[in-house]
Amino acid sequence: MSTTIRLNDSTLRDGSHAVRHQYTTDQVRRVVRALDDAHVEMIEVTHGDGLGGSTFNYGFSRTDELDLIEAAVDEARHAKIAALLLPGVGTIADLKEAALRGVSVVRIATHCSEADVAIQHFQAAREMGLETGGFLMLSHRLAPAELAAQARIMVDAGCECVFVVDSAGHLIMEQAADRVRAVLDEVGGDAEVGFHGHQNLSFGVANSLLAVREGATQVDGTLYGLGAGAGNAPLEVLATVFDRLGMDIGGVDVTGLQNAAEEVLRPMVERLPMMDRGSIVQGQMGVYNSFLFHAERASQRYGVPAQDILREIGRRGYVGGQEDMLIDVAVELQQRSLNMVS
Amino acid sequence: MSTTIRLNDSTLRDGSHAVRHQYTTDQVRRVVRALDDAHVEMIEVTHGDGLGGSTFNYGFSRTDELDLIEAAVDEARHAKIAALLLPGVGTIADLKEAALRGVSVVRIATHCSEADVAIQHFQAAREMGLETGGFLMLSHRLAPAELAAQARIMVDAGCECVFVVDSAGHLIMEQAADRVRAVLDEVGGDAEVGFHGHQNLSFGVANSLLAVREGATQVDGTLYGLGAGAGNAPLEVLATVFDRLGMDIGGVDVTGLQNAAEEVLRPMVERLPMMDRGSIVQGQMGVYNSFLFHAERASQRYGVPAQDILREIGRRGYVGGQEDMLIDVAVELQQRSLNMVS
Repeated sequence: MSTTIRLNDSTLRDGSHAVRHQYTTDQVRRVVRALDDAHVEMIEVTHGDGLGGSTFNYGFSRTDELDLIEAAVDEARHAKIAALLLPGVGTIADLKEAALRGVSVVRIATHCSEADVAIQHFQAAREMGLETGGFLMLSHRLAPAELAAQARIMVDAGCECVFVVDSAGHLIMEQAADRVRAVLDEVGGDAEVGFHGHQNLSFGVANSLLAVREGATQVDGTLYGLGAGAGNAPLEVLATVFDRLGMDIGGVDVTGLQNAAEEVLRPMVERLPMMDRGSIVQGQMGVYNSFLFHAERASQRYGVPAQDILREIGRRGYVGGQEDMLIDVAVELQQRSLNMVS
Repeated sequence: MSTTIRLNDSTLRDGSHAVRHQYTTDQVRRVVRALDDAHVEMIEVTHGDGLGGSTFNYGFSRTDELDLIEAAVDEARHAKIAALLLPGVGTIADLKEAALRGVSVVRIATHCSEADVAIQHFQAAREMGLETGGFLMLSHRLAPAELAAQARIMVDAGCECVFVVDSAGHLIMEQAADRVRAVLDEVGGDAEVGFHGHQNLSFGVANSLLAVREGATQVDGTLYGLGAGAGNAPLEVLATVFDRLGMDIGGVDVTGLQNAAEEVLRPMVERLPMMDRGSIVQGQMGVYNSFLFHAERASQRYGVPAQDILREIGRRGYVGGQEDMLIDVAVELQQRSLNMVS
């Protein structure tokens, strides 16, 4: 089969979590230049939690994301610049602003069971002439058939590619493949299917490969795997693996990506994500990856172990947007441990 | 199926590469204590390149490996302590010495096509009453049927478990599974089959899972993935994944291993292995993982990029034991680049 697999880069969006949203315009330009030179077709640039994410709840950006987007658009010679939007965090007004600054793709993300909150956003995006993608986040929370029904809602609203998003790095091989297949069975012909993996249990690349074998045609990654939790599927590893297997990755320069990761991205980053205890527990319990740093901050403040907070969050099934609940859990665990001492 | 999968730990052997063989007796004791407390059944303690590996060619140990072994044996309450032996690096005399210090398992490693050099070592080990494992290193270099023939040689010599060893982290899913199946088809009934994975392309855990599904009953890992190249399959991730899938891992304490990795191992290690450019190139080109630091040293000394040395080593197909050839390659690349300048 000679289907071209599009490798999307999210270093400047999902990777933003790992640098606490502190990217500078200069850093964005250098990353975009390197990715563009390596023929990456789509580069996502937004606050980690999407347009409008720079808030007290999610953490403030150092530089206005719209300025980062504009710099990226200016720097890219071939690549399309994409933005992420979580309805409720960002609005259609934010999207219009991003489009004015030159974004040509938007990916609209909802919790996997809440696709309907994105309907108007897909419609608006299509009216603006944007290419659209839809993120079904924490995809492990729904069985394949239920996930497919949510994908149908997105596609009917105007979504051109539905992503099975493993926001907790929880999916293990056929758990990812089965979801991709079910979604493709539902929307194939009407839309593409993509996969967005994380490394918490180190299945990001393996799951991506399985997704492609099921028929996914877009795969997300980030340089050095920079991203929330244990990080994303590393784009340079995806490219290396897909290329070695003889897959068509649309002319992406594998060595160029390896060099971009090592020479451009790595020197910018103080703390690279890794499979540390906190992120393994996220993968184990299915906890939204961007909660990791929130849990670490709550841990320092309330003196309870981050992994205990994450385990409890996992038990309670909190989803993206409930970042403030981590504080409640931390306070509760602190109280419990004080009661045990006294 | 209720087959018990034995998770072997190699933090104090394969992990030794990543700390340049500088383990202290106290560190060995602390790691063994934590692993033993977490009910890990087999703990390998040796120089990274096996018994007798402390040499100019491979790098000198800080502490005599026999003293480390003795400390490990003393510290372990339940776990068996294993040694690694590469015929030619170590000798039967070294093995006797290790057995005297309390080793009860030996794993004898050869390049995948050279199983016959290990025949006398397996025989000697069995005569000493040791449990035996056999490592077919750089397993990707042989097709499954050829690998199986080599496994047969080991088993006929007295090997009780043949390991498909992915020394370059080069194998991608079915490439690992096919080799495990072929070896099991050949030796099943006479011996167990094991898998030893590396993370260069992040398939260490996925390949291990596929190996088990093919019938492998022993899987190697290390705490935090500490090991040569991009590191090994992390033992705490293997345990987390296998446990989540309901597999029988013989009572290994998953949370205990997660804690051992984070609290005991991590503070000991200055530089944790990761999928950096050098190790990705190793995975891509199929280069023996312990060459990574050798290539980095040659790179610094001769002013040529480590990844170029590794790519050339990959093209030439050098195997473990040819560490000195890296210098020749570095000198040649240096010469070539000087000629281009002049």
